[in-house]
Parts: sequence; structure tokens; C-alpha cells
Amino acid sequence: MDIKSKRIAILSPVAWRTPPRAYGAWETVASNITEGLVARGWKNVTLFATKESVTKAKLVGWVERGYEEDKSQIPLVSTCLHISKVMERADEFDLIHNNFDYLPLTYLRLIKTPMLTTIHGFSDPDILRVYHDHKDSYYASISDSDRNKDLPYLATVYNGIDLSNLAFRETPGNKLVHYGRIHLDKGTHLAIEVAKKCGKDLIIAGIIQDQDYFDNQVKPYVNGSSIKFIGPVNPVQRDALLKEACAVLHLNTIPERFGLVMAESMAAGVPVIAMDLGSCREVIADGQTGYLVNNVEEAVEAVNKIDKIDRKKCRQHVDENFTIDCMVRGYEKVYEQIFRLENQKNKK
Amino acid sequence: MDIKSKRIAILSPVAWRTPPRAYGAWETVASNITEGLVARGWKNVTLFATKESVTKAKLVGWVERGYEEDKSQIPLVSTCLHISKVMERADEFDLIHNNFDYLPLTYLRLIKTPMLTTIHGFSDPDILRVYHDHKDSYYASISDSDRNKDLPYLATVYNGIDLSNLAFRETPGNKLVHYGRIHLDKGTHLAIEVAKKCGKDLIIAGIIQDQDYFDNQVKPYVNGSSIKFIGPVNPVQRDALLKEACAVLHLNTIPERFGLVMAESMAAGVPVIAMDLGSCREVIADGQTGYLVNNVEEAVEAVNKIDKIDRKKCRQHVDENFTIDCMVRGYEKVYEQIFRLENQKNKK
Repeated sequence: MDIKSKRIAILSPVAWRTPPRAYGAWETVASNITEGLVARGWKNVTLFATKESVTKAKLVGWVERGYEEDKSQIPLVSTCLHISKVMERADEFDLIHNNFDYLPLTYLRLIKTPMLTTIHGFSDPDILRVYHDHKDSYYASISDSDRNKDLPYLATVYNGIDLSNLAFRETPGNKLVHYGRIHLDKGTHLAIEVAKKCGKDLIIAGIIQDQDYFDNQVKPYVNGSSIKFIGPVNPVQRDALLKEACAVLHLNTIPERFGLVMAESMAAGVPVIAMDLGSCREVIADGQTGYLVNNVEEAVEAVNKIDKIDRKKCRQHVDENFTIDCMVRGYEKVYEQIFRLENQKNKK
Repeated sequence: MDIKSKRIAILSPVAWRTPPRAYGAWETVASNITEGLVARGWKNVTLFATKESVTKAKLVGWVERGYEEDKSQIPLVSTCLHISKVMERADEFDLIHNNFDYLPLTYLRLIKTPMLTTIHGFSDPDILRVYHDHKDSYYASISDSDRNKDLPYLATVYNGIDLSNLAFRETPGNKLVHYGRIHLDKGTHLAIEVAKKCGKDLIIAGIIQDQDYFDNQVKPYVNGSSIKFIGPVNPVQRDALLKEACAVLHLNTIPERFGLVMAESMAAGVPVIAMDLGSCREVIADGQTGYLVNNVEEAVEAVNKIDKIDRKKCRQHVDENFTIDCMVRGYEKVYEQIFRLENQKNKK
């Protein structure tokens, strides 16, 4: 049987529309997988998402709008009703691909259809209790580094990014850029330190996730000239921002899970200087598409040799590893693996 | 087949131990039902509760301790793992009696065993979405008044109270008593108003649930003599408190769901003066075990004729309607009804 005829249910969260209008990381990935499968010729893809979601696959919705967009809802009510709907129809599918965290696993032993869970992040160590109770299920990680050692992963599938609005530019800008959530984890204060030591201008962009951190460790250094803060950027503004960049500083202070910002920057041809923590060494080809560093001093050195990086290689690296098509091909392989394993099980 | 051989799973919450060490309303009811069934000769009762729970039935636990007693747990993780365990073993039971709110219903279509849900309260109108999505399930209400008109209830089963530490006293005290949660809903300020108008002493007891309300509408009137506040009471202290009472004032400002305080007071022989809202007219026999009133003036009149109430009748009313044994006999009838309905279904 043609694998692309298999009946796949993609379970998306219902916090936001799929795809989200603005923010909504997991809904974005679920949408990219769904549309990517359809684009690659999969014939029986069903997206479980809010009713107002937009897809070329079949859409099944129970919850009208995302609970983050309609605050009259109790999130847990919408969440569990939504999950129950895919579970109640499990027999109609050959595989459920869960992008909605740990709760779907608690229904899993009540259905016969296999489920693949992409673990988009461990929000709290306590949720490991659920995963460890379901070690016989199928898991994908979003980077090799973001794995729990006790879970049997089938594969790492990197998130694919949408390349529209990410124009490649061969000519570098003359500024340093730092963007993403403004939070200690993302090391905005370290980007400022590096820029000052290099005597280079820095543009900071992103939503302020930790106001205290911003007020105490960022705002005092923002002067509107050599250090600018421009707030959050949409894709068009991001394009204009990256045009200014000779390098993006990504000096994360905790292990990165995947690192969307790094992939986006490289797609635009901008090399990334990143702390060697978590997935950074998987996303950046060290010395080829940017530099991995261990501290501010090494980051300053990296800035000083940034013109050694071939910006075409940055884009090429993304084209080969971090596009939506790459991601979908990755999941196709995982699906195939699951069908094979399930066949073996059923033969026994 | 002897109905008492049927295999019953009682699903208790895992916020606290079952029975709870102190607070834990739903765990208390679940424990009373479980132990009551065993006491009445049911042979196959299984309690699903925290591992450290205490029961004469079979105990199945997955969560070590209540998430309110062990704050390292994410409540939702414990909740859903706990629920999944009874669902995964559903085939081992003839009936699941759910005392753990709405989430278990979202698993219901994945199992074959019928489930009875006692709705202990609607914490938010949004949870009706779950109940309305499962109108084909079985429900019990805890009073006729605490019902949603769109749900098909099989019966009302009043909560049964534990009569130990509730000594009956024929001789009334000479004070008014008001106890329970100190909150606008419970009308502590109205009890004060009534006491002042009658020129009678008032003792107030209970946990302060709304500090603003206490500070503004209660505390200014507490003087340590005619109006006393003694804080929360344990069962032994409650006994001493009720000994002082000629009447208990229960001037609730919103509909009562059931009204534990009213049943306890009557058990001690103390008549209750209650606002005619919600379940009060189901718990009090008006003119026989207390008075239903509509405002402060009527409450004052009621105090003035309180000696017309026969205190023996108060106790008798509880013995006949609100003991644990009454509750368990009530649920036995509901179980029987469900088995009959399920038999009819299976014959079709």
C-alpha cells in the first residue's frame, strides 16, 4: 500500500488558531507538518485544531476559537474535550501525530491506533511522570540535546521554518542584532556586553518576557543610537532588521531546545554567534555558518572574525536542514518506521 | 445475581488523602460512600485514591500523596494519570462511580463500563460544555436545587454526615451560633445584624475565606462579649460550640448547594434559621426543624419563636435523611437503576 494513502491525524493545540495569527509555536509546527504532508502528496491527512483553523487537509474542530483568544473558556475544558475528539475517532486513522504535549498520552491505552508524540519541550520535570508511564509509545525530539535519557525516541526531527519573508542577502550589514524573547535565558545582557566590547552598534528586538530583567539589565544600556531596542518584529520587520546585521548574537544562558532564531538568521545569510549550550551545536555548523562560544570574550573574538563566514553557506545550511520540507521528510521517515514496527507487532 | 456482588470502582480525587486528614470535601464523600458500601455488605468495592489512603475496600493508587499535600506535583499530571488508571482497568468493573468532577467524562466514550458522576458542584459555567457533551451518561445531584436543567439526572442523593462527635442535646443553649466559611455567600454580616436586633449573644466560627469581607463586614462588630469570633473549629470544638446554641443562623446570600452545616446542627438538636435559597428548603423541614426566611426581619421573628421547635425532631430528621447510611442506600438505588438500564440497552 502506498504510504501516502495512510490516514494521518495531526493533533494541534487549541490555544490559538492553526496556523496562529501571530504567536503560537506548537500550532505553527502542527500547521507546517499538515500542509507539508499535503504538499508532498499525502492523501488522507486530518488536522484536529480549532474550528476556525485554516488547512488544505481535512479539518476537524470541536473548540470554536483558541482559549488564548477567547478568555471565556477554561483552557482545560477545551483541551480535554479537543483531545477526546481525536481519541474517540482513533479507529479512523492509521497514526495520530500528537503535537499537544503530555495529556493525550493519558488516553492512549484506551485506543488501538499508534501515536507519535513530538515533545516540543519539558515545561516542568513533573510531566516526565506521564512520559515514563508510556515508554511503549513513540516519540520524536526536536533536537538531539533536548532529550530525556529514559525515553525511547525514534528520531530527532528539527523544526522547519517558513522561508517566505526571509530574503537571502550576500552583503552583510554593519550592526550586531539580537532578537527573540527578552529574558535572562536568551542572554540579552550578554549581547549588550559583547557589542560594547567590540565597539559595534546593536539592535535588540523582541517581546519583553521578563519585565524585571528588561528594566534592570537591558533598559539602562539602551541609548537609541549605539544600542537600540525596537520591540517585537513581524516577519516584514524582521527582514528589515536582518538586512542591518553582520551577525546575530544568540548568547543563551540555558540549553537551547532548538533555536528558531538561529535558523531564521542563517536563512537570511546572517551568521550566528551562539553559546555552546543545548541544541546550538546542532543548528550552527561551527566555523561554517557562525561560531559556538563559551563566554563573552570568545563572542568578541567571533565578532572580529565574522567576515570569514561565507553567507551563502548559511543559507545553504538552512535549505538542507531546516526547511518545512526537510521537517516533513523527516516525519515521513518516522511514520514509515512506526508502520513497520506496528506490522511486526501485529504479526506476533 | 446478588447486586452486592457487582464490581464497583469508586473514583476519589487525589488532592488529599481519602479520607482527608482535615479538609477535602469530595474525598470525604468518596470515603463515606466506599466504607458505607462495604459496611452494607458489598463484596467487590475498589477505591481509586492516593496510595496512602485508608479503606476497608480494595485500594488502587497510582499517585503517592495528594497534590495539595505534596507541592512538587503538577496537579493536572497527577489528576490525569490517576483518572487514566481507572479507565485502563474499566473492564474489571460493572460500574465506575466518579466523584472527581468533569475530566473523567472525556475518557468515557473509550470504555464500555457505565459511569455514574455525582456532580458535587459547578465550579464554573464553562465546565457545562463537558457535561452537555455527555448527556448520555449517568448523573446524580447533591440536592434537587443544585441541578442544571439540561442534564438528565437519575436522582438526588444528599450527602451523608458522620454522626460521631455530634452529640444530641435536648436542652438548648442561650446563644446564636453561625459557623462555616466566613464569606459573603454565607451571610456572616446578616447573622450579626439579626443577633443585634434580637439582643442575643452570637458566636461566629470558621475559616476566613474572604479576608476583605471579614475585615470590613465582620471584624468591626466583634467585641469578644456579645459578638465573639473563635476561628475554625475541629469536630470536638464544634460539639462544644453547638452546646451553646439555641439556634444556628445560616443566612446564605446565594443558593446553597447542599448545606453540611445545617445537617450537622440539626444532628446536635439545634434548629436552623436559613435563607430560603437553593437547597435550604430540602435540608430543613420548615417549622419542624427550623425556619426558612427571606430577610433579616423574618430571621428575627424566627429567633423569637425558636423554642417552638422540638429539638428531638431535628435529630430525627437527620437520622432519617442525612446519615452516611441514608446516602449509601440512596446510591444503591441509583446503581440498581443503572444496572437495569444497561441490561435493557444490551438486550436491544
